Amino acid sequence: MASGTKHGGKKRGKAKPSTSALDGWKKPPPEVLRAPHGLDLAAFDRASTPGWKHGRKAGEQLVARHADELSELQERLFAEGRSGGTRSVLLVLQGMDTSGKGGIVRHVVGLVDPQGVAHRSFGVPTPEEARHHYLWRVRRALPPAGYIGVFDRSHYEDVLVARVDELVPPEVWEKRYDEINRFEERLVESGTSLVKVALLVSPEEQRARLLKRLDRPDKYWKYNPGDVDARLRWSAYQEAYQAVLDRTNTEVAPWHAVPADRKWFARLAVSELLLDALRRLDLGWPAADFDVGTERARLLAT
Amino acid sequence: MASGTKHGGKKRGKAKPSTSALDGWKKPPPEVLRAPHGLDLAAFDRASTPGWKHGRKAGEQLVARHADELSELQERLFAEGRSGGTRSVLLVLQGMDTSGKGGIVRHVVGLVDPQGVAHRSFGVPTPEEARHHYLWRVRRALPPAGYIGVFDRSHYEDVLVARVDELVPPEVWEKRYDEINRFEERLVESGTSLVKVALLVSPEEQRARLLKRLDRPDKYWKYNPGDVDARLRWSAYQEAYQAVLDRTNTEVAPWHAVPADRKWFARLAVSELLLDALRRLDLGWPAADFDVGTERARLLAT
Repeated sequence: MASGTKHGGKKRGKAKPSTSALDGWKKPPPEVLRAPHGLDLAAFDRASTPGWKHGRKAGEQLVARHADELSELQERLFAEGRSGGTRSVLLVLQGMDTSGKGGIVRHVVGLVDPQGVAHRSFGVPTPEEARHHYLWRVRRALPPAGYIGVFDRSHYEDVLVARVDELVPPEVWEKRYDEINRFEERLVESGTSLVKVALLVSPEEQRARLLKRLDRPDKYWKYNPGDVDARLRWSAYQEAYQAVLDRTNTEVAPWHAVPADRKWFARLAVSELLLDALRRLDLGWPAADFDVGTERARLLAT
Repeated sequence: MASGTKHGGKKRGKAKPSTSALDGWKKPPPEVLRAPHGLDLAAFDRASTPGWKHGRKAGEQLVARHADELSELQERLFAEGRSGGTRSVLLVLQGMDTSGKGGIVRHVVGLVDPQGVAHRSFGVPTPEEARHHYLWRVRRALPPAGYIGVFDRSHYEDVLVARVDELVPPEVWEKRYDEINRFEERLVESGTSLVKVALLVSPEEQRARLLKRLDRPDKYWKYNPGDVDARLRWSAYQEAYQAVLDRTNTEVAPWHAVPADRKWFARLAVSELLLDALRRLDLGWPAADFDVGTERARLLAT
């Protein structure tokens, strides 16, 4: 890893939390964004900015202001992993097409050193993946110790598209919720901080974003006629998302519900959730496992 | 992938090459940095800035100025890969400890979307890797179509540390040079643009950088007593690097010799080499494989 943070911040000492404890938030972002039990997706305002009243510009500024700390904490996590530590962070991004998953990877995850990021995008299973249990490919993509893993879609596809498109019978997907809960519980026990984010975009905003892709030849490659088919099953998808929130919003692996109609807010929210997960690890720098004086003398003799 | 470039540049039309053809370089960077046949490593000035006379600040500004173009071309490459294209780019970074490989990944590769980067760092082979041919792990780490692959160290370790530390007998490593040339030739034929960079740091600068790690508790984790052992075999390593340049500097997969005593210059150099490789692909945006009017109508009906 390179010296210092990616953004040229202070190189020594403690990564400084910002001066104001709440940084302009009404409540701590993990608290305000955490999906409450009984959350009704149908009533969820996807253009809202819960906990944040300062608008877009201030939101973008906060992301930029926290970039150095995010980057330094990522480096500390990486250093810990290289020094025998076993902890990691896994950011799970779930959302319909155009909900902004990719933009979050680019603009938020892109703030930290790519060497410490294990990114995986989950599409239609390959023939090899399809021959295995649905968690097989997920286990293989888990972040190594010291890494920030990022899932663009995830094992939740196996209770979303699998359920809506009836890729497997109900008795199969029905069992998966508990299985996922057990899987995540073990994951957390093994030292992975899980940050689950549901990016919730409205059907109107999705239409506008898809239309935009059709207006711009540099966006054609992102457009897939299948996206319209998925729109036609919007309510079935919302039902499947509701079941995910109802049945996998556990104490050890809670969901965060992030309104995604405003891209800047979704990016701010995920940036703050990731930062919070890293802060809670209380990361120091690994101690030397050698004698500094001896090594200095050896070096000076070369 | 997100809309637009990572750095907020123009979203539409052609990625704009900069106004001045040479951007302050005396000659095009790939030309001035390409290792000439017969390059004598012992005489190579590792603090020099070949082709660049404008100093550090202007060098850093050029990296920043080219960030949008780099990012957009990476997105075009990714789009091509998602639309059936088979091309990719592979940046191979070789250099002694402290030569700045990690800093280049952080500060140069970090300029593009992490979703389009396949980064791999090659250390001591794992037991599984050691059971296979030395190119096995390399083949597995090659970038998928549309990706920029980054190797922090590479298959060249198998003719560097393997030779210097006599991990295999001479008749084994001796055959590897031709084998590597054939491997790389096939790689290039299959659509991978190979950018091979030797980062050349001086022993004095290396000592200074290692001492700095001992001065700072936040750098201890980067220090490995084995680094001093490698320093004690400096001339054997230089000989092994010389053999690499003499025997694997081919027409299809040429080496670039980048002086690495000035971090800013090495970053500038690699940023420009990567940009050049992307520009030479003459990347457009994939055409629509659907009827735009039909899709717009379908969308508006939802």
